[in-house]
Amino acid sequence: KQLLPIVHVLAILVLVILIVWNYYFRGGFGLSGNAVFNLHPVFMFAAFGYLSGQAILVYKTVDGDKTYQKAVHLTLNGVAVLVALVGVAAAYKFHLDNKFDNFYSLHSWFGITTIIFYLVQWILGFVSFWTQSIPSAQRAEVLPWHVFFGFTTFVLALVTIQLGLLEKLTFLQKGSPPLGLWSREALLVNSLGIIVFIYGAIVVLSALI
Amino acid sequence: KQLLPIVHVLAILVLVILIVWNYYFRGGFGLSGNAVFNLHPVFMFAAFGYLSGQAILVYKTVDGDKTYQKAVHLTLNGVAVLVALVGVAAAYKFHLDNKFDNFYSLHSWFGITTIIFYLVQWILGFVSFWTQSIPSAQRAEVLPWHVFFGFTTFVLALVTIQLGLLEKLTFLQKGSPPLGLWSREALLVNSLGIIVFIYGAIVVLSALI
Ligand code: HEM
Ligand code: HEM
Ligand code: HEM
Ligand code: HEM
Ligand SMILES: O=C1O[C@H]([C@@H](O)CO)C(O)=C1O
Repeated sequence: KQLLPIVHVLAILVLVILIVWNYYFRGGFGLSGNAVFNLHPVFMFAAFGYLSGQAILVYKTVDGDKTYQKAVHLTLNGVAVLVALVGVAAAYKFHLDNKFDNFYSLHSWFGITTIIFYLVQWILGFVSFWTQSIPSAQRAEVLPWHVFFGFTTFVLALVTIQLGLLEKLTFLQKGSPPLGLWSREALLVNSLGIIVFIYGAIVVLSALI
Repeated sequence: KQLLPIVHVLAILVLVILIVWNYYFRGGFGLSGNAVFNLHPVFMFAAFGYLSGQAILVYKTVDGDKTYQKAVHLTLNGVAVLVALVGVAAAYKFHLDNKFDNFYSLHSWFGITTIIFYLVQWILGFVSFWTQSIPSAQRAEVLPWHVFFGFTTFVLALVTIQLGLLEKLTFLQKGSPPLGLWSREALLVNSLGIIVFIYGAIVVLSALI
């Protein structure tokens, strides 16, 4: 319970570092060139890190009856998927504009899988627990699976974020001129990866206790 | 319970793919040059993927009294740490031999953190539950934290493995001559990453149900 403010502080810290990174070191945000790609990491963490993390914690953080909590939970997760789709579109447009291949990397394979898991999880959750179109006994049976796959999907997203950070940094360090292995930017992004891991662990812990 | 054979099948599949990859595509194993690096991925998954995964499942898989299960659990985790240290030494020697920098990447930061977590987790587990040098009431309080940090440490290792796979592949794809984005080797390694994720999810699920 005392962890809940820490969750917000860490999430905002991550967002600030992502924005600082892409704004000061990567040339900022926009709708073409590198600037469109730079939206990708920020949108992805905002969606699957912050919004979805808050969605998972709703049953701990939001007062009100169960129906109200469910409404917030499904809305936050729904908005997360929409924001994520915009974020993926940014990476995709960047690839199209530059005639880069699509979906070749381990990061993008994890990314696609994450999006599909979120869509399936959302639809199954909606049908089972919102429209309640299955009988109550079956709902009780389905719930632990919803919880397990919900956490799995969240972890999948966090792993994808780590892969994205490493991949972007490696591209820069293999680019010309190469970014220094010990440059301030590299240390910033590595630290970001560690903070994102701590954030994820604290979200899961807060949901479980 | 029916998942337990699947855990072994997946772990062995991962090991076989890692060996095939490094043997046929990367030039095989040895004590110098690339051949020493090639030991690294195999040892790391053998240690923190397979052995530690089996250690976590001991309380589900090994018949016998609690003391016996604990002995197996601590031995498997202990051997895992030792095998992992050899695996890291292989990567470190490769860096030294080639005068590459050490510990600059997000992968290696996660890697170091994983090793430290394993060492601390093992020592605290040993002191608390094997020598039982703290009173029983305190042991009961410590146990859920041991379980939480145990799973966290295992997940940290699995994330590190994913980062390692992506990093190695990216180096090859940015090398000269560059490895094809859609080469058989790239598809093999990407598939491996997905299988490792499934493996990890099934280990955690099997431990929890
Ligand atoms: C869960 C969060 C994320 C998801 C689901 C995701 C998904 C994706 C997808 C599907 C692509 C492929 C686009 C294409 O090929 O047209 C992509 C590309 C990329 N993403 Fe992410 N991403 C996430 C987070 C991040 C983060 C935090 C970074 C950090 C910078 C990042 C860096 C990259 C890079 C460098 C590419 C281009 C190279 C490639 O295709 O792998 N991603 N992402
Ligand atoms: C991608 C979308 C979703 C994800 C990732 C997700 C994830 C999760 C997770 C991780 C939990 C466990 C929370 C905890 O133990 O504190 C949970 C619980 C739950 N979710 Fe979802 N969920 C999603 C969509 C939905 C939807 C659309 C509904 C429809 C109402 C829903 C209904 C529920 C319910 C009823 C619970 C159980 C609350 C309780 O009694 O503890 N979820 N979800
Ligand atoms: C939990 C498992 C793993 C741990 C703890 C780990 C740890 C480490 C550490 C500490 C280093 C730094 C060595 C140095 O700088 O001298 C390293 C390097 C490296 N590892 Fe791993 N590793 C793991 C798994 C893997 C896997 C499965 C691969 C896949 C090929 C891999 C690929 C690499 C690569 C390419 C390097 C050299 C580049 C770098 O320093 O990041 N690792 N690893
Ligand atoms: C790096 C080393 C270790 C890791 C990663 C680790 C991890 C874990 C995990 C994940 C669990 C939960 C298993 C489950 O719920 O099925 C667990 C349980 C346990 N571990 Fe460890 N452990 C380590 C070392 C040790 C050591 C050295 C001892 C000393 C005996 C120990 C004693 C126990 C005990 C008593 C349990 C509880 C079993 C039960 O009653 O359910 N662990 N450990
Ligand atoms: O040594 C042990 O401590 C815990 C428990 O007894 C604490 O309550 C446990 O399961 C052991 O085997």
